[in-house]
Amino acid sequence: MREITQEFLSDIIDLYRRTPVLAFLYFCNGSDMEKCVLDCGAGAKVPPLALFHMHGYRTYGIDISEEKIAMAREFEERHEIMLNVEKGDMRKVEFPDGHFSFAYSYNTIFHMKKEEVYCSIGEMARVLRPGGMMFFNLLSNDDGGYGKGNEIGEGEFEEVYDGESVIHSYFGDEEADGHLAGLHMIAKQKRTGRLMENGRETNYAFIDYFLQKYR
Amino acid sequence: MREITQEFLSDIIDLYRRTPVLAFLYFCNGSDMEKCVLDCGAGAKVPPLALFHMHGYRTYGIDISEEKIAMAREFEERHEIMLNVEKGDMRKVEFPDGHFSFAYSYNTIFHMKKEEVYCSIGEMARVLRPGGMMFFNLLSNDDGGYGKGNEIGEGEFEEVYDGESVIHSYFGDEEADGHLAGLHMIAKQKRTGRLMENGRETNYAFIDYFLQKYR
Repeated sequence: MREITQEFLSDIIDLYRRTPVLAFLYFCNGSDMEKCVLDCGAGAKVPPLALFHMHGYRTYGIDISEEKIAMAREFEERHEIMLNVEKGDMRKVEFPDGHFSFAYSYNTIFHMKKEEVYCSIGEMARVLRPGGMMFFNLLSNDDGGYGKGNEIGEGEFEEVYDGESVIHSYFGDEEADGHLAGLHMIAKQKRTGRLMENGRETNYAFIDYFLQKYR
Repeated sequence: MREITQEFLSDIIDLYRRTPVLAFLYFCNGSDMEKCVLDCGAGAKVPPLALFHMHGYRTYGIDISEEKIAMAREFEERHEIMLNVEKGDMRKVEFPDGHFSFAYSYNTIFHMKKEEVYCSIGEMARVLRPGGMMFFNLLSNDDGGYGKGNEIGEGEFEEVYDGESVIHSYFGDEEADGHLAGLHMIAKQKRTGRLMENGRETNYAFIDYFLQKYR
């Protein structure tokens, strides 16, 4: 990174609410592997990859949404940095096996049906080197949003906004544990909370997985 | 801050596992109050105040442990910054009423008997300006450490290491809610998890409080 400006510092504060991503960066830092990370669902006004970039990581991201990629581009241009966010589908990651030391997906993977979630977890594991680490979070059945929309499968709900389908899949505390082939647990966390923001109360519940690929 | 060095950046990664402190910095940043923060239990090899400092906050800290203050001093000297950590007792904070915009205490306040915990919460609230925000975390009854040591009060356990008494107080999910006079809830979160570190498994459970003083 060339220079850390006040504008950059001011922007990245937005990332401090994405707490498990920060915990993941902490875990990555304990590894001696090459600093090379993939974000699945990387597009955002302030892309979490910016923090990895600040700490000397080579960053790569994919996102299925052109709109979110455009947001990331704007961030890159404003700060004159390259995060390498491209269009891509995490159900079929277009990188070779063992390409990255680290991979994560934050607040993204549960916007698919469960079968696709498990497929994407497999894809993240596939592009990791042995010993590499990954993180993703799932919505818990205890989340306040559970049950909203049409149930299109067990714990899978679909809502339509402006003609666009949005899926939320919700998981039991142990439900996804059997879908982590070739990975072992570094940490697993459940976050349950109540947030008052702009006069609106949100009740959330997430399950965070921090995993390492067997060597 | 004069200049952000690689050494400083490398050190602060250690703070990324202290996730609720980062969330608190995010909340503080949404406020238009003067950037002026107090950490109760501020001493550490990498003091969390360093992150507030990086983001332009005037920082103040108190700690009851000379040893931890010395660690903070070493960090200050290494990075040539002033975090203003002094010896002090959070049960009787030596600052006038309404002195700070923000105050927090991370992984500290539960090392006292519950009566002292509630007294300290009151002290943090006292030194806050109206509209100011505070954060602290408590150990939950669900934490893996619950029950270790001699029970010296309900949910209060004492262990002795090298002749020194260490107290852990554990709380029910709502137990402390009645001790937040003059404060309203911005967010409350329970983090329950399992961490594998150095071949050792830890089961933890914390309750995080993010509060705002009534205007």
